[in-house]
Order: sequence, then C-alpha cells, then structure tokens
Amino acid sequence: MIFADYFPMWDQLTPAQQEQLSGAAVKRSVKKDVILHNGSMDCLGLVLICSGQLRAYIFSDEGREITMYRLFERDICLFSASCIMQSIQFDITIEAEKDSEVWIIPPDIYKKLMTESAPLANYTNEIMASRFSEVVWLIEQIMWKSFDKRLAAFLLEESALEQTKILKITHEKIASHMGTAREVVTRMLRHFQSDGLVRLSRGTIELLDPQKLENTV
Amino acid sequence: MIFADYFPMWDQLTPAQQEQLSGAAVKRSVKKDVILHNGSMDCLGLVLICSGQLRAYIFSDEGREITMYRLFERDICLFSASCIMQSIQFDITIEAEKDSEVWIIPPDIYKKLMTESAPLANYTNEIMASRFSEVVWLIEQIMWKSFDKRLAAFLLEESALEQTKILKITHEKIASHMGTAREVVTRMLRHFQSDGLVRLSRGTIELLDPQKLENTV
Repeated sequence: MIFADYFPMWDQLTPAQQEQLSGAAVKRSVKKDVILHNGSMDCLGLVLICSGQLRAYIFSDEGREITMYRLFERDICLFSASCIMQSIQFDITIEAEKDSEVWIIPPDIYKKLMTESAPLANYTNEIMASRFSEVVWLIEQIMWKSFDKRLAAFLLEESALEQTKILKITHEKIASHMGTAREVVTRMLRHFQSDGLVRLSRGTIELLDPQKLENTV
Repeated sequence: MIFADYFPMWDQLTPAQQEQLSGAAVKRSVKKDVILHNGSMDCLGLVLICSGQLRAYIFSDEGREITMYRLFERDICLFSASCIMQSIQFDITIEAEKDSEVWIIPPDIYKKLMTESAPLANYTNEIMASRFSEVVWLIEQIMWKSFDKRLAAFLLEESALEQTKILKITHEKIASHMGTAREVVTRMLRHFQSDGLVRLSRGTIELLDPQKLENTV
C-alpha cells in the first residue's frame, strides 16, 4: 500500500478510513513552474509528492519572493490544504520546481478523517512541526548569517539537488529564493568568482571549488 | 470549569480525560524575566497563561535575540512542551515579560491525552498553526519592511500593551525584540525624535505623536 509510505501511522487507521483516504486521492502530473496553490484563499488539498520537487514561498506587495522550504519525494505538503485549519492565516504559494508526480487528497476528506482519527491528527501535527522547524531555521539564517554564507549554502544545496557542479540558474531566480534583489546576488557571485570559487557564464554558474565554498558556510 | 476557557473542545473530552488534564495541571507564579523554557533539551509542559505576558524568542551564537511572538492571558504555550512532538527541532526560549500566573500541564499527560483524543490533537494543530502564522508574519516584516516602520509598529504595540505613552524600556531591550544591535535602535529613535515623533530621556521613550507614528507603519 503506497500511502503507508507517507503516513507511518497508516495501520492505526480503520480499513474504512484507509479506503476513504486512498479512494479520494487523485494522481496528477505537474509541469515545472506550475503553481499548485496560491495563498490562503486557495485550498487544493494535501499534496503527497511521488517524484519531483516543490517550493513553498511567500512574496511581498512589490513582488519580491523568499523560499520558505522545499518538498521532495515522500514529503507531504500540508499548507496547500490551508482550509483544514482556521488558524492557518498566511499566504503561501506552492509551485513545482521540477516536473512532478503527486497524489492530491481533497481537503474535506482529509479534514473529516483528521476529526475521527487521533493518530492522523497527531501525524498532521508532526508534519506541521517539521515545517515550523524549517521556518525557524530560515529566520536564523536571515537574522544571523551574512549573505555570502547564505549564498554559498544555497549554491551547494542546488549542486547536491541537481547532482552537477554546473548550475543552470539565473541570478534573478537565486534572488527569489533568498528574498533579495538580483543585483545583490550578482555582486556576491562576482566576488566569489574573483576568489576562484565559481566561474560565471551566460545562464550558468560553475562551482570550481565546492570544498572552499563549504568552508565559507 | 476554567480549562474550558483554554480548550474550546473541552466538552469533547471524556470526564476521565477532563479529570486527568485538570488534575495534572499545576498553578505557578512566575516573576518577570524568569526563563520558563530554554531550548529543545528542556520540556516543561504546556503553559496556560492566566495573567501576565510571555515572550518566545530565539538567539544566535553571539547572543543576539529576536522575539518570535508574545503570549497573553488565555493563550497556550505549546513549544514549552517540545518533547510531545519529535519534529519540533528548534531551540526556542520562553521568558516571562511581566509577573505572570500560569497553569502548567506536564508533557507526558498531555501527550497521552493527545494520543487518545482526536479533538485535543486537532486543537493542538490549531495552536501550532496560530504560531506558524505569527512566524510567517515576522518573516514578512523582516524581509519586506524597512526598520523605521518595524520600530514604529513595535513602539505602538508596546504602548498598547502597557497602556501608556511613556514607555519604560531600554534601547538594548528593543534591539533584543527586533533582532538588531542597540546602536541601530538608538540611531532610529533619535531620527524619530528629530521628526517630533518621540521624546527620549534616560530609560524612557515618550510617544509624542502616536497618529504620525501610525502613519509611518
């Protein structure tokens, strides 16, 4: 049963509950850059990620963005079902960062099952606590880490995710992840280049010395 | 029954569960500046605030602080019971900002009841979602709002909480709330003073023009 991979307390649901949950889930393919969920007025449902990569971010009135966290294979996206809890009072946007395969569980079904099942409600608590931990980590990064360290960490993360030292990503895109302006990213990347850490060319950033970059973090 | 004020789903608990929860709760007086909970190694329990004011904050290796949110009468502090969820993986500190009266519910009792009761587990989800909303709001403030606006908002909040226009608070303390250095606070307050918004004197900040300060926000 595939859903047991997402819900470790699967066998604490009754057979009827298991059937409702798996019966209601809809498989969907999502192309890179497609927005799955857009703010608190939206309520797509829980998204279980089979493959690919999602990004959760917020943005300002001026259109600046910052990535809150990313979701990968076997992760569950909870805030795309923001209507299941009235206290979720913030606007988060979820987009596919890569072509992705997902299961979507409608919010009404999930909410009903959460109301019935303490194990499912408690597991939902654990999912939210995980995201909370990531968001607190983000605040720590923003508040106490200098931008060069944050950028070095981001480049290393990208390199690990894409399994390549030659990143195909624009300075604009990096700025959107990090909540800053493109110029700030470009300036720091040029600084990295003059230190021999990266080589910049049109549309790519090559990591020349990941170890030295690691020491920067 | 006083606990029904904190737990709106109180009547969905069985009489035995209600008794366990209320029987285990311990009333405690906490003096201003006392630290109730200190990081993830600590696990005091759920704190229900009867009166007073608590502050939840994080700090850097260098000892700089930033306030994540504040808790008031009738609020529940969940992260002081961080051991009830394994996914709570961050260090938060909870201190009394004023002399406070609280009920403390031991974490093991609460965890047991949450495991049994879907209504309690779901209500715990709502508490966490509320804090999550506050923390996302904080990120928005840090990322997109200029420091003058944040400081103006902080002074107005303090004035409302203390019900006075003459704030007895040090620049150092404000810096700890806002995650910045004392010098930055002092510089901006002097700027406010020269604009006729505040009057600074030893240990106090008087709000001369709250309306104009409001317009700054």
